[in-house]
Amino acid sequence: MSGKRRVTIALIAEEAGVSIPTVSKVINGRPEVAPATRHRVERLLHKHGYQRRISQDETPAGLVDLVFTEMESPWAMEIVRGAESAAHEAGASVVITVLHTHAGPGRDWLERLAGRRTDGVVIVASKLSSGVQDQLSARSLPFVVVDPEGEPAPGVVSVGATNWNGGLAATRHLLELGHRRIGMISGPADMLCSQARIDGYRAALETAGVPASPELIRRGTFMVDSGHDHGHALLSLDDPPTAIFAGSDMQAFGVLEAARQRGLRVPEDLSVVGFDDIPLAKSAWPPLTTVRQPLQEMAALATRTVLAMRRGETPEARRVELATELIVRESTTPLPA
Amino acid sequence: MSGKRRVTIALIAEEAGVSIPTVSKVINGRPEVAPATRHRVERLLHKHGYQRRISQDETPAGLVDLVFTEMESPWAMEIVRGAESAAHEAGASVVITVLHTHAGPGRDWLERLAGRRTDGVVIVASKLSSGVQDQLSARSLPFVVVDPEGEPAPGVVSVGATNWNGGLAATRHLLELGHRRIGMISGPADMLCSQARIDGYRAALETAGVPASPELIRRGTFMVDSGHDHGHALLSLDDPPTAIFAGSDMQAFGVLEAARQRGLRVPEDLSVVGFDDIPLAKSAWPPLTTVRQPLQEMAALATRTVLAMRRGETPEARRVELATELIVRESTTPLPA
Repeated sequence: MSGKRRVTIALIAEEAGVSIPTVSKVINGRPEVAPATRHRVERLLHKHGYQRRISQDETPAGLVDLVFTEMESPWAMEIVRGAESAAHEAGASVVITVLHTHAGPGRDWLERLAGRRTDGVVIVASKLSSGVQDQLSARSLPFVVVDPEGEPAPGVVSVGATNWNGGLAATRHLLELGHRRIGMISGPADMLCSQARIDGYRAALETAGVPASPELIRRGTFMVDSGHDHGHALLSLDDPPTAIFAGSDMQAFGVLEAARQRGLRVPEDLSVVGFDDIPLAKSAWPPLTTVRQPLQEMAALATRTVLAMRRGETPEARRVELATELIVRESTTPLPA
Repeated sequence: MSGKRRVTIALIAEEAGVSIPTVSKVINGRPEVAPATRHRVERLLHKHGYQRRISQDETPAGLVDLVFTEMESPWAMEIVRGAESAAHEAGASVVITVLHTHAGPGRDWLERLAGRRTDGVVIVASKLSSGVQDQLSARSLPFVVVDPEGEPAPGVVSVGATNWNGGLAATRHLLELGHRRIGMISGPADMLCSQARIDGYRAALETAGVPASPELIRRGTFMVDSGHDHGHALLSLDDPPTAIFAGSDMQAFGVLEAARQRGLRVPEDLSVVGFDDIPLAKSAWPPLTTVRQPLQEMAALATRTVLAMRRGETPEARRVELATELIVRESTTPLPA
C-alpha cells in the first residue's frame, strides 16, 4: 500500500502533532489514548498505508488467531479442526476468540491482541471494519477472512466455497426429481455465502423455466431453531413447497423437526436438502442429502495463507473459492405423480 | 512437593554433573540435550520437586492451552466453548492443540510450548505421563485434567462429571420402564469416565436384583461408528436387549442407525439412552433421552482453576465432579407387556 517513500511512525507522529509513543499505542491497540487523538492517528495510518517493518530475524510467534462471531454449530468445529491441522503442520498453534457480537472484532479484541504476539489472524464469518483492518495492517499482521460478511474491501484476502454452484446443484437435483414448489431457507442477508446460495437457487429455477415465488424464500440464521421456524412458516403456506433447500445442515435438521411435528414424512411428503455436510448429516434420520463444502480445507487454506503472508509471500489470489459437491442421501425423492 | 530448602537449577546442575543452561534446556523442553543427560536431569527434577519461581511482577501471558487427543465430536466443541468463555472473562484467550495420538502430550508438544508463553494448560480426555507432569511443574505451569485417562497421579487436579451417578440414573430409568435386558456400550476401558458409567449401570442392575450379563456390556470409542457396530453386535445376540444405554450421544446416534438398518423402531422396539446431551441430541429422531453432563461448565471450571493456580492460589479440591442429570425425551418407552 505504501508508495516508494517509507512511512515511519515519526512521520505519522509529526503530521498528527503527537508523540511517537502515542502513535505506537494506537497501532498496538492500547487503551490510554484520547478518542480524538486516536481517530486522527488512525486516519493518518490509513492515508499513508503505514506498515510496521517486520525484521527478517524476528522469530514467528507460533500462534495464528482464529476469530469467530459465535461457535454454536458443528460447522465451527470443522473450521477449528482445519485451522489447527494447518497450523500444526507449520509448527504453530491456533488461538480461539469468540466475539459473541455480530459487529465484528473491535477495540476490545485489538487491545487483547496487543498484549501478546501472533503471526496473523483468520477471521471467520464476520464483519471486518476498516478501522480494524488498518490497525492489523499497521502492525503488519496478515489476515484472511473465511466466509466474509458483506463484500470484503479491495485487497482483503478471503476464502469461501462455491456457494452459488452449490445452490444451483441442490436446486437442480430437486427440479430433476420433479419438484416445482421448492422452498429455500438461507442465512443472514449480509453474508456473502447466504446470498450466493439464494442466487444459485434462483438461477436453477430460471434455467428450468420455473418462476421463483418470493414467498418461498426465507432468510434466518444458520441454526436449528431458524430452520424449524422457517420450515413451519413454509409448510403452513396455502400452497406449501414439496421440497425445501436449507442453507445449512443445522437448518435442515430444524426443517426435519418441523416436518415431523406436522406429521409429514421425509422424503415421501417433503424432500429436504441441507448445506455443509457436517459429520452428523449422514447419521441424521433420514440421512441428509446435502451440499458438501470443504470446511476443514477452507480453514486450512486460510491458515496456510496467513502464515505465508507472515513470511512475506503474496497470496496468489485475493479470493479463493473451493468446490462444493452435492451428496445425495435419503432425504430427497421424486415428487409423486 | 519441595521441602523447606529451596531447590535451585544450580543444585540440580551440580548433582547431575551438567551445566546450568543444560538444566534450563531440559526444563524448557528444548531438543538439544542428549537423551541420557535429559533422563538424569528429569529424574532429579522429579526427586527434588523443582519448580521455577514465578515473579510477582511477571505479567500473565493471556493464554491458556487446551490440549485434545482428538476433536471429532461435538463434545469437543462444548469443551472449547466453555474454556474460551472462562478465559475471555479473565481477559485471556485459549490455544488449541490436537495431539492426534492416544499417548498423551509428549516431547513435541513440550518443545512447541517452550517457544512461547502460556499461563497454564487444560488437558482434555488424555493420558498425562509423569515426565510431562514433571516438566510442567518444573516450569511452574499449572495444569488441570478434564476427564482424565487412567487414575490421575496424586496431586493432579482434575475435573469431571458424576459419571457413576449418570450411569445409575440412565439404567434406573430403563429399569423403571420395565426393561430387564439392557445393553451397555461405553468408551475406552482406560478412561475413568467410561468405567464409572459402567459401574453405575451395574449398580442399578444389582440394586434392582437384575443379573448383569457380560455379553450385554461392550466397550468402544465414543464415536458414531462405534455405536453403530456395537449396536449391531448387541442386536444380533440370540436374546437381544430391549434397551441400550450408550456412553455418548454420538454412540447413541450410531445405535439409532443400527436399529433402523435392522428394521427396528425406536422407541417401540428398542429404547435408547445417550450420554452428554450435546446440542443436537434434542434434534435427533427420535429426540434422544440422555444424561446431560455440563461440558461447558466443566471446561470453564478447569480453565478458571488453571488461571487461579497461575495467580498462586491453591485449588479447593484435587478432584471436582459436576452433577449429571437425566433428560427424558422420546427415545425411551415402557417395555410392551
